[in-house]
Amino acid sequence: MNTSTTTPETVIEADPDVPTVRLVREFDAPRELVWRAHVEPELIKQWLGPHSIGMDIEVWDMRTGGEYRYTATREGEEIAHFYGSVHRVTDNERIVQTFGFEEMPEAVSLDTLTLHDLPDGRTRLEILSVVYDFESRAGMLASGMEVGVNEGYEALDALLARLKDQA
Amino acid sequence: MNTSTTTPETVIEADPDVPTVRLVREFDAPRELVWRAHVEPELIKQWLGPHSIGMDIEVWDMRTGGEYRYTATREGEEIAHFYGSVHRVTDNERIVQTFGFEEMPEAVSLDTLTLHDLPDGRTRLEILSVVYDFESRAGMLASGMEVGVNEGYEALDALLARLKDQA
Repeated sequence: MNTSTTTPETVIEADPDVPTVRLVREFDAPRELVWRAHVEPELIKQWLGPHSIGMDIEVWDMRTGGEYRYTATREGEEIAHFYGSVHRVTDNERIVQTFGFEEMPEAVSLDTLTLHDLPDGRTRLEILSVVYDFESRAGMLASGMEVGVNEGYEALDALLARLKDQA
Repeated sequence: MNTSTTTPETVIEADPDVPTVRLVREFDAPRELVWRAHVEPELIKQWLGPHSIGMDIEVWDMRTGGEYRYTATREGEEIAHFYGSVHRVTDNERIVQTFGFEEMPEAVSLDTLTLHDLPDGRTRLEILSVVYDFESRAGMLASGMEVGVNEGYEALDALLARLKDQA
């Protein structure tokens, strides 16, 4: 594995043998809260993506056979339209889904998100993505995804802290 | 590419560099009929899979964001439960979807079906599938998929001939 640590906490790995990307991040919250923050539209819109980007959700149906669709906005202007279909959901554990955006209709990845319990009420999140070829993966890695990932997970840290206070 | 011709007509290729499988088959019918035979549940149940296997369709919603789910039966007995989600549909051209079955819930592929016009009212179908690793692909190729593929496409040849007669 070629490993690059993009913050003290998020690891993004590109496998040398297959066109996959593995992302690993730990959160100081139990699995059930990290899960809710991914499947409840009112929660995910509070953290996903870079700080400067808003999220207008049209569909967020995180069930086996479901789908999602949202528009990323900056200062009220539409900048990208993301969507995908949901292959399989195992509550509090795993989501297998596709990911794409209208601006590049040929681009698609198959993403598996998995949550693991850690000691002391913490959770490890892994997302394993595969695309059809190494060129497509190079495009993903060159897209600046780590900025959105890191800023989004900082916002998720803060959201999880608020949810723990409410619990 | 390692190429193996499994019948005079169907080619199944395993790429040496990425864990994909490419299937290519030509049909003596125009693209619109081959398309209908894939998206209309009353048509697909007439040809998909080996001759000895029936298909009880629960959901066949071939739209962007849709899903499908069916049970394979032999002499009335349930033998496997297949399902997937539909990432993107471009009418008469392309379907991007996932594929899995309940009997092996970790197994999943991302499949892109594309139809191309050929001269003389013929059509070339390609399906490009990707999985997460070479071991999973070896499992796919060892599953005897070519039997179902070849018998299914023979039945599809016959269905397309009937549809052309009706047109």
